[in-house]
Amino acid sequence: MKKIRIGSIGLGRLGYEHAVNIAARVPGAELKALCDVDKEKLRNVAGQLGVEQTYEDYEQMCKDPELDAICIVSPSDLHTKQIRTALDNGKHVFCEKPLDTMVEKCREAEQIVAAHPEQVFMLGFMRRYDYSYRKAKEKIDRGDIGRIILIRAYTQDPLATIESTLKFAPHSGGQFLDMCVHDIDLCSWFTGGQKPKELWAVGGCFAYPQYRELNDGDNVSCLIQYEDETMAFLFAGRAAAHGCNVETEIIGTKGTLRIGSVGTDSMLEVLSENGVCRECYPDFMYRWHDAYIAEMEEFVNCIREGRKPGVTVYDGTLASETAYRCKESFETGKKLSFREN
Amino acid sequence: MKKIRIGSIGLGRLGYEHAVNIAARVPGAELKALCDVDKEKLRNVAGQLGVEQTYEDYEQMCKDPELDAICIVSPSDLHTKQIRTALDNGKHVFCEKPLDTMVEKCREAEQIVAAHPEQVFMLGFMRRYDYSYRKAKEKIDRGDIGRIILIRAYTQDPLATIESTLKFAPHSGGQFLDMCVHDIDLCSWFTGGQKPKELWAVGGCFAYPQYRELNDGDNVSCLIQYEDETMAFLFAGRAAAHGCNVETEIIGTKGTLRIGSVGTDSMLEVLSENGVCRECYPDFMYRWHDAYIAEMEEFVNCIREGRKPGVTVYDGTLASETAYRCKESFETGKKLSFREN
Amino acid sequence: MKKIRIGSIGLGRLGYEHAVNIAARVPGAELKALCDVDKEKLRNVAGQLGVEQTYEDYEQMCKDPELDAICIVSPSDLHTKQIRTALDNGKHVFCEKPLDTMVEKCREAEQIVAAHPEQVFMLGFMRRYDYSYRKAKEKIDRGDIGRIILIRAYTQDPLATIESTLKFAPHSGGQFLDMCVHDIDLCSWFTGGQKPKELWAVGGCFAYPQYRELNDGDNVSCLIQYEDETMAFLFAGRAAAHGCNVETEIIGTKGTLRIGSVGTDSMLEVLSENGVCRECYPDFMYRWHDAYIAEMEEFVNCIREGRKPGVTVYDGTLASETAYRCKESFETGKKLSFREN
Amino acid sequence: MKKIRIGSIGLGRLGYEHAVNIAARVPGAELKALCDVDKEKLRNVAGQLGVEQTYEDYEQMCKDPELDAICIVSPSDLHTKQIRTALDNGKHVFCEKPLDTMVEKCREAEQIVAAHPEQVFMLGFMRRYDYSYRKAKEKIDRGDIGRIILIRAYTQDPLATIESTLKFAPHSGGQFLDMCVHDIDLCSWFTGGQKPKELWAVGGCFAYPQYRELNDGDNVSCLIQYEDETMAFLFAGRAAAHGCNVETEIIGTKGTLRIGSVGTDSMLEVLSENGVCRECYPDFMYRWHDAYIAEMEEFVNCIREGRKPGVTVYDGTLASETAYRCKESFETGKKLSFREN
Repeated sequence: MKKIRIGSIGLGRLGYEHAVNIAARVPGAELKALCDVDKEKLRNVAGQLGVEQTYEDYEQMCKDPELDAICIVSPSDLHTKQIRTALDNGKHVFCEKPLDTMVEKCREAEQIVAAHPEQVFMLGFMRRYDYSYRKAKEKIDRGDIGRIILIRAYTQDPLATIESTLKFAPHSGGQFLDMCVHDIDLCSWFTGGQKPKELWAVGGCFAYPQYRELNDGDNVSCLIQYEDETMAFLFAGRAAAHGCNVETEIIGTKGTLRIGSVGTDSMLEVLSENGVCRECYPDFMYRWHDAYIAEMEEFVNCIREGRKPGVTVYDGTLASETAYRCKESFETGKKLSFREN
Repeated sequence: MKKIRIGSIGLGRLGYEHAVNIAARVPGAELKALCDVDKEKLRNVAGQLGVEQTYEDYEQMCKDPELDAICIVSPSDLHTKQIRTALDNGKHVFCEKPLDTMVEKCREAEQIVAAHPEQVFMLGFMRRYDYSYRKAKEKIDRGDIGRIILIRAYTQDPLATIESTLKFAPHSGGQFLDMCVHDIDLCSWFTGGQKPKELWAVGGCFAYPQYRELNDGDNVSCLIQYEDETMAFLFAGRAAAHGCNVETEIIGTKGTLRIGSVGTDSMLEVLSENGVCRECYPDFMYRWHDAYIAEMEEFVNCIREGRKPGVTVYDGTLASETAYRCKESFETGKKLSFREN
Repeated sequence: MKKIRIGSIGLGRLGYEHAVNIAARVPGAELKALCDVDKEKLRNVAGQLGVEQTYEDYEQMCKDPELDAICIVSPSDLHTKQIRTALDNGKHVFCEKPLDTMVEKCREAEQIVAAHPEQVFMLGFMRRYDYSYRKAKEKIDRGDIGRIILIRAYTQDPLATIESTLKFAPHSGGQFLDMCVHDIDLCSWFTGGQKPKELWAVGGCFAYPQYRELNDGDNVSCLIQYEDETMAFLFAGRAAAHGCNVETEIIGTKGTLRIGSVGTDSMLEVLSENGVCRECYPDFMYRWHDAYIAEMEEFVNCIREGRKPGVTVYDGTLASETAYRCKESFETGKKLSFREN
Repeated sequence: MKKIRIGSIGLGRLGYEHAVNIAARVPGAELKALCDVDKEKLRNVAGQLGVEQTYEDYEQMCKDPELDAICIVSPSDLHTKQIRTALDNGKHVFCEKPLDTMVEKCREAEQIVAAHPEQVFMLGFMRRYDYSYRKAKEKIDRGDIGRIILIRAYTQDPLATIESTLKFAPHSGGQFLDMCVHDIDLCSWFTGGQKPKELWAVGGCFAYPQYRELNDGDNVSCLIQYEDETMAFLFAGRAAAHGCNVETEIIGTKGTLRIGSVGTDSMLEVLSENGVCRECYPDFMYRWHDAYIAEMEEFVNCIREGRKPGVTVYDGTLASETAYRCKESFETGKKLSFREN
């Protein structure tokens, strides 16, 4: 069977990860072209991965008749524009989260995608493709835990990488948009698309006062109640001593599911003068390595089988919109309704 | 050394537990008298525990010159009155939580206690005497986890006892006063007495609509921000399938502590076709069995050594006041400041 | 109901623990007399625990008409003699493990006990009274795990106390008699009294060469096959970095039970730069604190109710006999049959 | 960089897994040819994986000048012969475990490999490439746990697949050769190549008497002492109710490492009326999925970089030889020296 030929834009850390996966770890995929504004990086990665075709201009790449699909891992505020170019050129599109930086742009993206119903569009909420999360979703859908009462979601970056985290802070969009957006999407996924009714976000600068200048906190929380009364508690932190920690708990009327409590990076347990210990993931790239591959496999399989993926463009808008409301609540100190009447 | 002679009022389930502990499990204590309005129960328990002196009238017992101390395990709305009688008669007092049902009564209790500075008064926040919690407190006070960012506290009753839980519901004061009050006290204890600044409580009737008539939910949550920016997330539920579950997490800038994640009732792990499983506690009495003994030991030792216990009457007021604010927020749907200006 | 009046012999560390428990933690028991050859210790402990009657001479104490029962926590080679004196004087007897140091003496003890069928005799295999072990035993007897295939038993002393461990080494009887004897008894208990068919013991001095002079190892193992083909693997070590660790696993045809994998001293979990850690017990006294109380409660209840306890004098002989065979196998390097034909 | 072109022989369950991995999951590798005696299976798999070249005759494939390397996943008694053919034709060789079925054939394989020093030969002890095991090995080599005292190794097949396990039994070589051989290799790896001094193996038919006809047990154990006094305890079982379970513990003088205690298939924890549960792996293919990829990546990288892999042909002989001795001990009931003098 013919391989799906993909051109990938953006060679930052995650862009590089996607490129390597497409080149060598995703069955049915072929990395056919690369695009980046950094000429040297472009040449190096192309050489390393054996990719012959390179572009500095994204629009040029979208016109390449040798390509079936485009993978977008560029700065978030370029997403909508690039989605349009790729779809208009007849390509299938995989786009990294978030959909875009502004809710209006997200809605624009919705319209573009809607205008190309035959093409596959997929957003990179990779957690949905993590094995543990998929098992949880199956159990929920099968009714194992009854009705969902509360979702608790933690996303903590490791203290070990705080310097680069601080450097990235001004461009991150803040904790709710950068980190919680994944958790917000999970809440939406697990509840079958429920929308927030009300929410209140708080936080503070407990160790890194520099976040205050950005109108952000180094640790933030949000309590959300959804339209059907389901509750969600989000917590995000920039510098957990124990490492990268993402954990999600879904409490239902008949049972409870926990993913990673606490997530440890291997099956190794060390018994020493510190007691009985397990190590956490050094960073998100290690945590989600398999999920990044699995989501790309799903993208490729959708193209091959003429299916649409579970993550839609509307999921992207909903997550961004919710994250913005959390951010607004945090900044104003007010409890907010999701949509003003 | 002379034993501390204690008279105990109230022979409900917890009252009986305290009586048994005083009679046979607390070094330095002697159960000298029992009081209850139910004559038959009184006679039976007195016989079983070998207690010669019994009273149906609490005031009579407080005048008994053979008693050093009184243990109050009566209905909550009688607490303040009984504290007064006991203290005025020169007895040391151990009183079950909550301090009283109304904040005004709590303040009254504060004054009574303050008027008897030589006598020991102790409130039954037994979690502070649980071994795991004491270890956590030591680590916090030693600075092991840095500054506290977030406290997460769950208190879940087991599904197995839902019928008696439902029967008790109208007299419980609601989830915040009945269950969260323990968690609220722990937040106060761990943070060194911080007061809430703002809070928002939500919840719902996810499986038991009968709570709606009581203006309560079967599962409720509250997000609190304290005056120093510390955040707390409380969750209480009436019917957890996995059993009695109390877990507390303290996230700090340098480390995190978790007590019971998930609390299991023994070291036994069962590997079967269900996977690898551990069982939870059947109910709170099993979970806190040792803590109930330890707190009574502390009460007795305080009397013997002329010390005052760590839990004060003010802790009782603060916890009740906070719980009432949570309840008000839940009932009105409003985010509230702790104290109205 | 009248309390059972107990006189206790031996005020070493464990003897003191038993004395404190009888005095204040065992319902229905009264510590009426103490006996030790060390006059000063005797006076101090008697004063502390409020015991009026003290003896330096064990035989004298056994004649005290005020005593119902005797608790023996003296050097092991005195056990049989003291059991005889106590039983002949009409007292019930609780005796610490091991039954005695020599198998011949154990058989002598069997005869003495058999000659006093109306009196309660109980041996201190306290693990049988630990809550986790009792739950395991119930599940086994109920058939939950089918037929037992393998029992794995670890007993590790903590590195932190290695100095006192080394000092005690010459008097300990060696690892099999001192430590594995508990595990051997558990195997016997779980299998319903199976006897070993063959066994092979190995070991070495991995960190403490001084054990070689005692014909012992600092870490030893033994593989046993019982008459019904059940297998057992024993491991004992003198100096585990992570602390006191006792764990037992029972693998059956339908399920597996694990007690303490790894046993941690509380529910506290610490998340720090070391990862996710739990602390072990500092030593065996902490691990078995509740079991020591529970076994004494059972002893007292047996006396009150005219019952015989589950642990018999024959269990004591079987455990010692097996431990001696392990020791012999270790010393000779030979695989041995349990009983020579 | 040019991809390593691999031809793979054998399309049984594991052969198919290797083929899929080479085709799509191993960077730098290309699946260029397939060989199997089953024509239809050959055609199907070749079609599915897009492989143009197929062979029914292994010798023919070895002569294909388009191939750099051969992957052998055929019946074990053909291994040595096929290794010879491939190496003589100048191909690099990856061979599944065991090296061969007889120790004499293993020694023959050693000579063949030694005669082709420029070519890469690698044996499929994939556990060495599992992430958790690699982390353990690093810690051991760094001295974290001091000197190794005891290695405990469990390998349990799931009850769920017992029917196919029973069908395969007559061709498996027995538990020691089929299952324990992995654990034996791990012992050798962790101890830096120690050889057994003495060993004793026992076992029985606890649930499946049909193993008795094969001179095997459904559950077996072996205690080994190595030349430097290190102890090892092996346990293998055919039908664990909780699923596929492989766990390895390395107890050292300064610390202990555990891999998978118990190994669970994801981070998902389920809290329900069964308590707090995690699920095990359904079978070995799920457990070692990543390790199978990682070992093939290492094979390909060794070829590219002119290196030799960590697993040698001598490791294969040592593991088989030890497994045979365990089998002999089990069958005769004798404790054996590793090599007869």
